[in-house]
Amino acid sequence: MAKFNLAKKISASVSKLSGYVPGEQPEGGGWVKLNTNEFPYPPSPKAARAVLAELGKDAARLRLYPSPDSRGLRAAAAKYYGLKPEFAFAANGSDDALNLIIRAFADGEKSVATLEPSYSLYPVLSKMQGAKFVRIPFGKNLSIDVSKIASSGANLFFFTNPNAPTGFGFGREIVEEIASRFDGIVVVDEAYAPFSGATAAKLVEKFKNLIVVGTSSKGWGLAGMRIGWAFADPSIIEVLDRVRDSYNLDRLAQAAGAAAIGDEKYYAPLRAEIVSEREKVQEFFDSLGWRYFKSSSNFVFFKPSKNGKFGARAAADLFAYLKSKKILLRYFASDKSVSDGIRMTVGTPAQMEIFKKAALKWSKGK
Amino acid sequence: MAKFNLAKKISASVSKLSGYVPGEQPEGGGWVKLNTNEFPYPPSPKAARAVLAELGKDAARLRLYPSPDSRGLRAAAAKYYGLKPEFAFAANGSDDALNLIIRAFADGEKSVATLEPSYSLYPVLSKMQGAKFVRIPFGKNLSIDVSKIASSGANLFFFTNPNAPTGFGFGREIVEEIASRFDGIVVVDEAYAPFSGATAAKLVEKFKNLIVVGTSSKGWGLAGMRIGWAFADPSIIEVLDRVRDSYNLDRLAQAAGAAAIGDEKYYAPLRAEIVSEREKVQEFFDSLGWRYFKSSSNFVFFKPSKNGKFGARAAADLFAYLKSKKILLRYFASDKSVSDGIRMTVGTPAQMEIFKKAALKWSKGK
Repeated sequence: MAKFNLAKKISASVSKLSGYVPGEQPEGGGWVKLNTNEFPYPPSPKAARAVLAELGKDAARLRLYPSPDSRGLRAAAAKYYGLKPEFAFAANGSDDALNLIIRAFADGEKSVATLEPSYSLYPVLSKMQGAKFVRIPFGKNLSIDVSKIASSGANLFFFTNPNAPTGFGFGREIVEEIASRFDGIVVVDEAYAPFSGATAAKLVEKFKNLIVVGTSSKGWGLAGMRIGWAFADPSIIEVLDRVRDSYNLDRLAQAAGAAAIGDEKYYAPLRAEIVSEREKVQEFFDSLGWRYFKSSSNFVFFKPSKNGKFGARAAADLFAYLKSKKILLRYFASDKSVSDGIRMTVGTPAQMEIFKKAALKWSKGK
Repeated sequence: MAKFNLAKKISASVSKLSGYVPGEQPEGGGWVKLNTNEFPYPPSPKAARAVLAELGKDAARLRLYPSPDSRGLRAAAAKYYGLKPEFAFAANGSDDALNLIIRAFADGEKSVATLEPSYSLYPVLSKMQGAKFVRIPFGKNLSIDVSKIASSGANLFFFTNPNAPTGFGFGREIVEEIASRFDGIVVVDEAYAPFSGATAAKLVEKFKNLIVVGTSSKGWGLAGMRIGWAFADPSIIEVLDRVRDSYNLDRLAQAAGAAAIGDEKYYAPLRAEIVSEREKVQEFFDSLGWRYFKSSSNFVFFKPSKNGKFGARAAADLFAYLKSKKILLRYFASDKSVSDGIRMTVGTPAQMEIFKKAALKWSKGK
């Protein structure tokens, strides 16, 4: 064999790809971790109990393949949103659902569109699929011009609601309008919807071109378990079932997700507290004269100032200062459109106090 | 919007796709389940303990994202095979690893080849990727003509060793020969290698075009946890890392896999027993004059006869008879090349006794 040249063996779309860079997962303890929008409390005790029950005395059940279609989880997710089970799909985290949707509905001929900015994974997944990616800018104050979406020529449109990285939330009406006017598949990515109080899930009964995606990572405290779902007309679910792995969720993830999703009694007060802390930290930013997008999610994207100056220098400096105090936020240094701001997960009241004290100290020149 | 036409929205490769059909996972108890090659015993107690430790008192850790690169699992898998951690990759089951390999190294221009028959998932995944799929027939008595592989023009070659669905095993030398002569990526799919005693894993240190894939599903009793791995030169691992999901294994799966893989003390005697039962059931088939492929795996593909007649009718009849007795084997009715045989997982000695009794009864006309 001639000398092996790996570069020539890589598929065309992957050869041009740099992978998505997820937020840092620091090792060791002592961090105030506000960088990847995790839920600040443990998941429902029902999730832990379900895992223990599935594990049983000697974990014997783990030797058997899981339910191929995650039947129990699909049923529980559908029930929580008031849908029939055949409208539900389960995935290994909602990122997996997004990936499968792009495989199913995009390719070299079928392009993908989103509003700019939105979740930064969509362009990575589209590139991997060899699909053209169209960025439609928001209007002033994050307004949406639906005619631009309708005339984009895309086959697939992703709508992050609440938006990432801004946290800004939109009402159900705009989803209805997009789904009505866009002649393609509309995906509403509702990772942060548990903190906005608005979901478009029920609309999948009305719109045959609509997919609503959710995750247990943000609103259910189960980021470590990789549990995502999607709701759509059964005709769309059938297509997604073709492209997923035969056994895409393990037994313990299925059990945890099915047990947790409907436990409103446990989650509702915790989510309310997060929303309350979110409002308070926004007031804190107001008091400093800092800017931010009004958030409907469990994070706030804010722009700090130092000596009255906003910009990337101030943001980078605050981010580094906080990190030196083991307070970890998320800073997108390489993306010029957001490098003047920092994304902060809303944590527990105690974590928010630590953050505010440090931020205040920094604002006064340390 | 005009009437929505879903068929026109599906990506070209997926529109022609019918999904892979996995073996039946019967609900309810009482089955002698010998249809999907699961390990007949629970996983190592270390796996259960690791899950409990990760779960902790209140499952609090589950709220945090897992290690993005499954660091502990990669290290444990590499160690077990005598490799450095940077040669290891972890996936959500080995089917996920196979899918990612095809995404990374196949497309409309870069084709995929395998020996026929091999694991039937490869053509499904190739079709999904829009890649041409080349089938190279085995020679007489499952002999392999490496020159046909070398001249196939494919970019990616899958070698199931031991083979599925025949169970037949090949030595390391043939892997060396293929990797030397094929100018592309060679994937050795070793799902069943724990029962053959032969693995090519160490060869990834020598061949920069070699990937060796494994799974905890068959040899480690963890099919329910979706834990797979791949070994290759770090330059290949880097490409696979680009195409995988950022957090592709959940915390409990990572913990279970890392704890189980090296527990040779637990697994070795159980695997030895399975191998012994495999030899005994082959002797049983000999005693009936039935045919089978000599197996190096934890299943046997055999061809039953009734009144001296082999063929699809006998196989289908025996399969149905056993199923009526709640003994579930795997029958590929729609694949004419193997519809004269049945695939049987090697179970516990007690399960094998039940099977043999029923098969004997059937052979005598019930």
